[in-house]
Formats: sequence, structure tokens, C-alpha cells
Amino acid sequence: MTNSNKQDYSGIFITLEGIEGVGKTTLMKFLAEYLHQHEIPLLVTREPGGTPLADDIRHFLLSEHEETVQPETELLLMFAARAQHVQNVLRPALKAGKLVICDRFTDTTYAYQGAGRGVNKAKIEMLENVVQDGLKPELTVLLDAPIDICLERIKARKKTDRFESETKQFFQKARNAYLEMAAAEPERFYVLNADQSIETLGAELLKILQPVINRKFILS
Amino acid sequence: MTNSNKQDYSGIFITLEGIEGVGKTTLMKFLAEYLHQHEIPLLVTREPGGTPLADDIRHFLLSEHEETVQPETELLLMFAARAQHVQNVLRPALKAGKLVICDRFTDTTYAYQGAGRGVNKAKIEMLENVVQDGLKPELTVLLDAPIDICLERIKARKKTDRFESETKQFFQKARNAYLEMAAAEPERFYVLNADQSIETLGAELLKILQPVINRKFILS
Repeated sequence: MTNSNKQDYSGIFITLEGIEGVGKTTLMKFLAEYLHQHEIPLLVTREPGGTPLADDIRHFLLSEHEETVQPETELLLMFAARAQHVQNVLRPALKAGKLVICDRFTDTTYAYQGAGRGVNKAKIEMLENVVQDGLKPELTVLLDAPIDICLERIKARKKTDRFESETKQFFQKARNAYLEMAAAEPERFYVLNADQSIETLGAELLKILQPVINRKFILS
Repeated sequence: MTNSNKQDYSGIFITLEGIEGVGKTTLMKFLAEYLHQHEIPLLVTREPGGTPLADDIRHFLLSEHEETVQPETELLLMFAARAQHVQNVLRPALKAGKLVICDRFTDTTYAYQGAGRGVNKAKIEMLENVVQDGLKPELTVLLDAPIDICLERIKARKKTDRFESETKQFFQKARNAYLEMAAAEPERFYVLNADQSIETLGAELLKILQPVINRKFILS
């Protein structure tokens, strides 16, 4: 479940992925609480965002605009925020030996801007090279559930942002892209059925994370 | 003085370049006024910016931030604004047959983010391909003057932005990069000595533009 990339840091980089409404935020909270209790040197962060400047870009990306936002503009803004996050937050935390758990990372870009908006995959790969210079999560947990369940959860929210208000077709494309990426990189991805209680999900998640985290930290 | 690219539009795309304090804004005003008087279908615009959304990104780029802005972040924000400007404003105006005069374009990125900040040229070329898909000005007027003259003019301003407050060394690098680009593409660039009165400069500029503009519009 770990990739073979030689990294120039001693920390562990784990990401959580999935479409809107799949329950990522709830699971992240559960996980962060559990790990804090175990006093593991931890950074819990998210994309787009993770630095004050990247959070400004996030706000910009999630807001509705009167003007048509071009897919390339959205893509470049995502990677601008990521460049800031990677260099000012992620790399320093990983070099300091922390366990870094990130809510969304570049897989989101392939799923949303790539499959969802139809941006050419080669363009995303190019930007990934420019911005990440080889940085990749060693474990990615993909929370997955049928679209209709996710859409029900989104509908229950009081306010929806520019992504949450996307069409069912958009989310279907994004979900398919996630599942394809998971199938293509089984050594990095772990797909978790999100249509379960938070207790069951939390227990499953910890079972997945334990061997990776135990390489460096004592979790149990 | 025109390049040989086959373009899918009937308009004319001209850019004005040069470092801070060289007198671009004053010259742009003079030119816009003159062309408006001649009732030429005209778009006068600028980068970064040129659309409401791109102007928001401009504001972000020119503001001071407490957090270190990574060179790659700045580069990606520049191209995010450019993607928006190219697709929502520049291409439509050029397709509508307009004369488009743009205050700064991609040459600025090579001079400032490339030479000034030290971002690898290959990264900028890659982004240029992603965002512009072959769109290039057919004439670029480079306003040039010794750095000390430009710095004196910047100092006289009440408030300076994140670029205007850069060091002499930064502007020296940017100026050298501009002059190198002009030397490498003499068929596109025209270098104008900016250390002259606005009347002389304006007359020289019109002499340069006339043959290009006269291809399509009646200027005199």
C-alpha cells in the first residue's frame, strides 16, 4: 500500500478523496480527533486552501461569478493554490516528520477539472509536474458512494457552493474518474464504501491507516 | 513587422511592454485617445486583468501579503488571469475584427516571473501553450529606458504595489530580458526609447503602428 518513490522527507503523506456529499468532512473530523488523542505529530489540512493565501484562492474558486469561469482558469487557480500549499505547508510539515492528512489533493483535479469539466489530462499532468516536483501521497483513501446518496446529502445543506451546485452528470463523471484512478493505482488507493455509519467507517479507516502510520508512529 | 502565423481572426493584436516607470500608461492613454478620434473599432485592455474576474486576480497579485508568495504561485495566477482574458475578451474582440491594444502580455511574464523571479523558462513556455494556443501579438512595442530613470518615476508615486516595490536588480534583470526578447524576435518587436517627451514618443509610436493598422483600417 506504499509507493516506491524515494522522498526527501521523513513524514507520511495521506490524502482523503471523494465527491461532494460523500462524508469526507465528518470522517476527517473523526480521524483528526483520534490522532490528536494519540499525540501523533499531525497536520490536518485541505485543498484548495491550507494557507491564508491559498484559502483566498479557495474562496475565489468556490464563489459564484457573473462571468463564465473558463475551465483553464479554474485549473490554473487550483494549481496556484496548490503551489502555495505544497511549498509553504506540506513540504515543511513532511520534512519535520509529521503525519500529514490532506482533505483532497491532485486526484480531485483529475476528477473535477479533468473528467468533470473536460480539461485535457495531459495539461493536468504537466501542471502536476511543475507544481509538485514528484510529491505524491503514499496512501489515498477514496470515499465512494452512489451519486444519488451524495446528492441527497448536498441538497440537505443550507447553502451550496459553485461545485456543490454542479449537475448529477458532473458528479457521475467525477466519481467514475476516481474509481478508474483507484483501479489504475491499487498500491496507493484504498476505496472505502461511504454508505455506512460513521462508527463503522471510522473503524475501517483506522484499519487501513494503521500499518502505514505504524511505520513511524505508535498508534495503538 | 508582422509574423507569419495564420490566425483565425480578422482583428489586429498589438501589445505594449516595458518595466514599471517607463511611461507605458501615459503612452497608452495618448494612443487610445488618438485611435478613438479616428473611430477605429478598438479594444484597449491590460494584463494582468482585462475582465472582472481577471481584475480580481490582478488585485491579488499586486497586493502585499504577509505570507511568502511562491514564484510558481505568482506564475500560475498570472496565467489564470490570462486564460480568462484570452478566452472571454481578447479572442472575441479579435474575431469581431477589432484593433486590440494590450498593456502587457506574456512578454511581461518572461521578463518578470522568468528573469526577475528566476522561474524556469520552459515552465512559462508550457503555460503559454496551454493558455494561448498559438495566440501571439503581431506587433509588440517595447518602451525602454535606463533603470535609474524608471526608478525615479516610481519613487515619485504616492503608493507602490508589490511589483513597483521590487529592487533595482529585479528591474535590471527584467529590462535585460525584454531587450533579449526584442533582439531574438525583431520581426515582432519594436524598441522605443522612452526617455523622450510624450509628444515625440506619441509621434514615433504612430509611425510604427500606421503600416500595421492601415492593413485593415484607415488611420490617416
